[in-house]
Amino acid sequence: MGRRTTEPPISWLMATALANPRLISLAAGFTDQATLPVDETQTIVQDLLRSSTAGPAALQYGTTIGDPILRELTTLRLKHLDAAPRSSPALSSERMVITNGSQQMLYMLTEALCDPGDIVLVEDPSYFVYLGILQSHGVHARGLRMEHDGIDVAHLERTLRVLKREGKLARVKLLYLVSYYQNPTGITTSFEKKRLILELLRNCEGAAGHPLYLLEDAAYRELRFHGKDIKSALAVDPSGERVIYTGTYSKPFATGARVGFGLLPKPVFTPVVRIKGNHDFGSSNLLQQLLARALSSGLYESHLAILRNRYTQKAKTMRKHLQQNFPTAVAWREPEGGLYFWARLPHPLKSGSKSKLFQEALRKGVLYVPGQLCYAEDPSRPRPNNEMRLSFGAATERNICTGIERLGKVLHKLVR
Amino acid sequence: MGRRTTEPPISWLMATALANPRLISLAAGFTDQATLPVDETQTIVQDLLRSSTAGPAALQYGTTIGDPILRELTTLRLKHLDAAPRSSPALSSERMVITNGSQQMLYMLTEALCDPGDIVLVEDPSYFVYLGILQSHGVHARGLRMEHDGIDVAHLERTLRVLKREGKLARVKLLYLVSYYQNPTGITTSFEKKRLILELLRNCEGAAGHPLYLLEDAAYRELRFHGKDIKSALAVDPSGERVIYTGTYSKPFATGARVGFGLLPKPVFTPVVRIKGNHDFGSSNLLQQLLARALSSGLYESHLAILRNRYTQKAKTMRKHLQQNFPTAVAWREPEGGLYFWARLPHPLKSGSKSKLFQEALRKGVLYVPGQLCYAEDPSRPRPNNEMRLSFGAATERNICTGIERLGKVLHKLVR
Repeated sequence: MGRRTTEPPISWLMATALANPRLISLAAGFTDQATLPVDETQTIVQDLLRSSTAGPAALQYGTTIGDPILRELTTLRLKHLDAAPRSSPALSSERMVITNGSQQMLYMLTEALCDPGDIVLVEDPSYFVYLGILQSHGVHARGLRMEHDGIDVAHLERTLRVLKREGKLARVKLLYLVSYYQNPTGITTSFEKKRLILELLRNCEGAAGHPLYLLEDAAYRELRFHGKDIKSALAVDPSGERVIYTGTYSKPFATGARVGFGLLPKPVFTPVVRIKGNHDFGSSNLLQQLLARALSSGLYESHLAILRNRYTQKAKTMRKHLQQNFPTAVAWREPEGGLYFWARLPHPLKSGSKSKLFQEALRKGVLYVPGQLCYAEDPSRPRPNNEMRLSFGAATERNICTGIERLGKVLHKLVR
Repeated sequence: MGRRTTEPPISWLMATALANPRLISLAAGFTDQATLPVDETQTIVQDLLRSSTAGPAALQYGTTIGDPILRELTTLRLKHLDAAPRSSPALSSERMVITNGSQQMLYMLTEALCDPGDIVLVEDPSYFVYLGILQSHGVHARGLRMEHDGIDVAHLERTLRVLKREGKLARVKLLYLVSYYQNPTGITTSFEKKRLILELLRNCEGAAGHPLYLLEDAAYRELRFHGKDIKSALAVDPSGERVIYTGTYSKPFATGARVGFGLLPKPVFTPVVRIKGNHDFGSSNLLQQLLARALSSGLYESHLAILRNRYTQKAKTMRKHLQQNFPTAVAWREPEGGLYFWARLPHPLKSGSKSKLFQEALRKGVLYVPGQLCYAEDPSRPRPNNEMRLSFGAATERNICTGIERLGKVLHKLVR
C-alpha cells in the first residue's frame, strides 16, 4: 500500500497555489470563506460547554458508529429530503455511521468491499480523490460516459456485457456515482437514471455471484441553487439493500469541522464499523455535538439558506464572465448547484498541466484543475486532455471576474 | 480487508457496559470526566471565533499534514520534554503530521510499512487496538516478554536470532513500543532499554535488507504522577532515521477532540501523507486551532497540572483499595503514570470473559478488561489468561472504591 499510493494529483496544484499567494485559484474545492458559520458555531459551542452534563460529555470519547442524536437527526433530514415514510428501512438511523468527512467513508468502503484487482465502475470523469483511493488499493476504475443527466446508461449496459463476456463480472464490486452537481462536471443524475442503473446492476448479480452496490456520493446535494431536489437512489431501493449513501456536513456547513456520514446495507455496515474501530474508534465527539446542535436548533437550516444564496450569486457571476470572456468555441455547462463549472476546449487545444493554456494562465496568475486529473487510468479509452474544472467556491466575486477575464484572454489568443 | 477485519475485542465489553448502566466499569480507557477542560475550551473557542481572520480560517479546510503552528508547537514541546537542541533534526516540525488521535497514525503506518504476511514485534501484552490493526492487515505480531522496565532485551535478541535462522527477518518491519505507563501493564520502558532495542534492530538490518523501525507510542507520556520524565527514543536516534514517534492530545487534553500526531523519518513521511490525503486530506482545522491555542496560551499546561494531580489521587485510591481488598496471592503493579493497574491471579485462576471471576464480577456489577485480550495470536506461546487491566481513568473515586471492594470479595472466594 505504501508503495502503491501515488502522489495525489491535487498536491502540486496546492503547492503551486501556496508558492504564489497572489494567484487567483479557480482550482481549489474550498468553500466560500465569507459565509462560514462563525457566529453559529460560537453560539452553539457556548451553549454546549455551558451545560454541566453536555459540556464534559462533548469533550469525552464517544462511540465508534457516532453520536446517536446526530445519527437520528441526519437520518430524519434525509427522510425529509427524500419524502420517505418515517418507518423507511433504508432510512433508519441504525444503518448510519458518522465519519471524518464523507471522504473517510469512501476510504473505508473501499477497504471493506474491494480487493486488489477488483473493478469499480465510475463516471468518466469522476471525483479524483476517490480515483486515488481506488488506485492505492490496486482497484481498477472503469469509466462510464456522461450525458447531461448522468451516465450514459446504454454505455453502462455495454460495459457490463463486455465485462461478463471477459469473465470479469465477478471482480466488479460497485458503481460510484457523485449524483448531485458532480465534481468535476457539475452534472446531476436524474432519478430515472438512478432507477435504470440499479436495475442493470441487479440483472448482473447472478453472473457476478455477489451484490453489486450503487455507491451514491451526495456530497453537494444541499448546495442546490433553486428548484426541486431530486430523490436519492434510496427511493428506488426502499429496503436499502443495494444502495450505499454517503453525505457530508463539510460542504453545507463547515469544511473545518469535517463531519460526514453514510447509510449502509447490513453486510457493509458490519465491516465498515470494525474498520472504523481500527482507524480511530469514533470521530470527534465535540464536532458531532456541534453538528447535532446546529441541526436541532435550526442554525444549520438558516445558515444553509445564506450559503445557497451566496453560491447562486457566485455561479451567476461566473456564468456572466464566461459569456463575456470565453471564445464561443469553448463549450461550458452551467451547474444547478455545487461549486463547479466544466469547460471543454475545441480541437486541438489541450488543458493539461504541460499545455500552453495551463502555463500561460499560470503566468497570468490563474489556476484551474486540468480535466485530465479527473479521469481514471482506463485502458479502454485515452484520457481526455481538453477540459477544465472552474470552481467558484472559494474565490471572491472579484477574483472570479478577474480570473475568468484573464483565462478568456489566453483562450482567445490560443483559439485564433 | 473487509473479511479479515474481526470484531474488536473491546466491542462486547462496551456493549456489556451499555446494556447495564449501573455497572462499575474499571474497563473503559475513557478519561476522567470531572477534569475535562470545559472552561479552557470555552475560552479558546470564543477567542478564536471572535477573530475576523482566525475564526473563518478555523472553519475552512486546512492542509493534509496539519496546521503549521500546531506542528511547530508540538515539536517545541517534545524538544522541551527531551531536552533536545533547537536544531535537532529528529525533532523538526517538517517531519510532523497531525492525525485524528494517534490511532489514525498507527493505522496509516501499518498501511504504509506492512504487507500481509509481514511481522511486527510487540510487547507481550500490548495495546489491543493496535493488535487488531495488525490482524486486519494480515500482519503477524510476535510477542516480546516484559520486565519491570520494558521488554526483556535478551528475549528480543533470541527472537531476532530465531527469525534470522528461519529466514523471516526480511518480513520484520518494526518493533512497537508503548513506552510510557503502557496500556495495559502500566510499565514504563527505561531509556537504556530504548538504546539497546535500537542497537539490536540496527544490527539486524543487513540481514533484513531494509530499515527496522522502532515505533514509539507515547500516548500516556504526559500523564506522569511525579518524578522525572524519561527521554524518548528520539534522544538515542537524534537524526531521526529509525524512530517513529507518535503522541496524542486526546489523553492529556480532551478525548472528545481526538488530535494526535507523529514524527516520521523521511521514507515513512511521504507514503503516510499520501495515505492521509486519501483518508481525509487533513484533520479538522477547528480542533487543530483549539489545540494550537491551548498550547500557546498556557491553558494546556495549567490543565495538565490539574489532570496529573487528579490521576495521582485516583491511582492512590485504587492502590489503597487493592491493598485492603485483594488477596495477597493476587499480584499487582502500581504505575507511575497513565490510567491502568495490572493484576495477576495465582494459578490456576483464570480471568477471561468465560471465567468464574469475570462472570461473578459482572453479577456483582464490576467490569474489567481480561488480560487475554491484550495478547496477540502468537504460535510461539499460549495466550496468558490470568491477568486483569484495571483502569482508574473514567471511574469516580467512589466507584473505584466500591468496584475494587466487590472484585476483592469475588477474588477472596475464588482464591480460597
